[in-house]
Amino acid sequence: MSDWLPSLITKTPTEGYDLAVKLARVAIKLTQPDAAVRDRLRPEYADDVAALIAVSQVVATHFATVAAANDYWRDAT
Amino acid sequence: MSDWLPSLITKTPTEGYDLAVKLARVAIKLTQPDAAVRDRLRPEYADDVAALIAVSQVVATHFATVAAANDYWRDAT
Amino acid sequence: MSDWLPSLITKTPTEGYDLAVKLARVAIKLTQPDAAVRDRLRPEYADDVAALIAVSQVVATHFATVAAANDYWRDAT
Amino acid sequence: MSDWLPSLITKTPTEGYDLAVKLARVAIKLTQPDAAVRDRLRPEYADDVAALIAVSQVVATHFATVAAANDYWRDAT
Amino acid sequence: MSDWLPSLITKTPTEGYDLAVKLARVAIKLTQPDAAVRDRLRPEYADDVAALIAVSQVVATHFATVAAANDYWRDAT
Amino acid sequence: MSDWLPSLITKTPTEGYDLAVKLARVAIKLTQPDAAVRDRLRPEYADDVAALIAVSQVVATHFATVAAANDYWRDAT
Repeated sequence: MSDWLPSLITKTPTEGYDLAVKLARVAIKLTQPDAAVRDRLRPEYADDVAALIAVSQVVATHFATVAAANDYWRDAT
Repeated sequence: MSDWLPSLITKTPTEGYDLAVKLARVAIKLTQPDAAVRDRLRPEYADDVAALIAVSQVVATHFATVAAANDYWRDAT
Repeated sequence: MSDWLPSLITKTPTEGYDLAVKLARVAIKLTQPDAAVRDRLRPEYADDVAALIAVSQVVATHFATVAAANDYWRDAT
Repeated sequence: MSDWLPSLITKTPTEGYDLAVKLARVAIKLTQPDAAVRDRLRPEYADDVAALIAVSQVVATHFATVAAANDYWRDAT
Repeated sequence: MSDWLPSLITKTPTEGYDLAVKLARVAIKLTQPDAAVRDRLRPEYADDVAALIAVSQVVATHFATVAAANDYWRDAT
Repeated sequence: MSDWLPSLITKTPTEGYDLAVKLARVAIKLTQPDAAVRDRLRPEYADDVAALIAVSQVVATHFATVAAANDYWRDAT
């Protein structure tokens, strides 16, 4: 993968959240590089309550990092 | 989804907590965009002890971020 | 629910811990608002080792936030 | 329970770790106040790999808080 | 293992993420030092949704550390 | 156990990581003090993908603490 993460800085909190989602997904790609397998697994976890919540937990952890990087977008308030 | 997260700043800790709950739910929406599936899954996890606690964990992680963003609402004390 | 969280500031670490327990429970209430269902689930998780430890994890995450908000009660030492 | 947590400040990192273990256990006590039930559950989780690791995770989260409260015991180094 | 972690400083966020992935993997190597066993386990978790998300969670935790170490690569922005 | 944790300060990031592994293991020892039981459990979790990842998560949490204590070893860079 090329330089997919040029910066943690985003213009808005919403974009920061989207970046957190991306950060959560890339680790899965790196661990399971086969796109066909990931496509097969996707419906499985999209219907699985525990998996959905676990994904949300990973996003929360990354969002904490992105929010800190952006000083919580306080200047934009 | 439009700009659903204009700011992490809230007036009170209670509103900050509500925002943390929202932050936890959005990741689930983004991973399972089909509202009908989410509606079907909802009673499943609302009755599942492990799922309820896991949701509470995600909320806790986001609340840490929101609380830091608001400098723990110390000025409001 | 009314303004149940007026402040993260507590007089002592013990009270801060109690607040962390409360913060952990509220997310469960918000996800499962039916008190009768929660009462039915309660004995289930109070006897379940994994659930008890998971609750303790949520409390730990909130306690980190409350402790930071109170500057670790250093002045009280 | 009386004022069981007078301070997060400890003299050494080792004592800080012990405090983290205590902080992890109290949440379990508060969720399952019946000592007889806890005694019955104890051998169950002491033999359960997943439970042991989960307890260690809770301790790690509390240790982060205690270490920060003590400024990582840098002055003692 | 020799000095495999000379620094937490990386030039870019992308390299920081790669380092987080490495940090997540080393703990598994240290706990299961037998490469043959790890090779046997690898396909198992690469096909397991829960395991993939759990790996992503570990990466997220390490990425928070690496990002803080690099002051979120703010100077590079 | 005697004073097994004299300091969180380490000379290098690699040593800091080793300390994080140690911190993760001690909680397991304190919860299951019987070495014979731990020896019996060890092969069980060394072959269990979920357990290996969970151990890695605990190490990640402790590594965050140790890295912060050492100011991310920035001076050594």
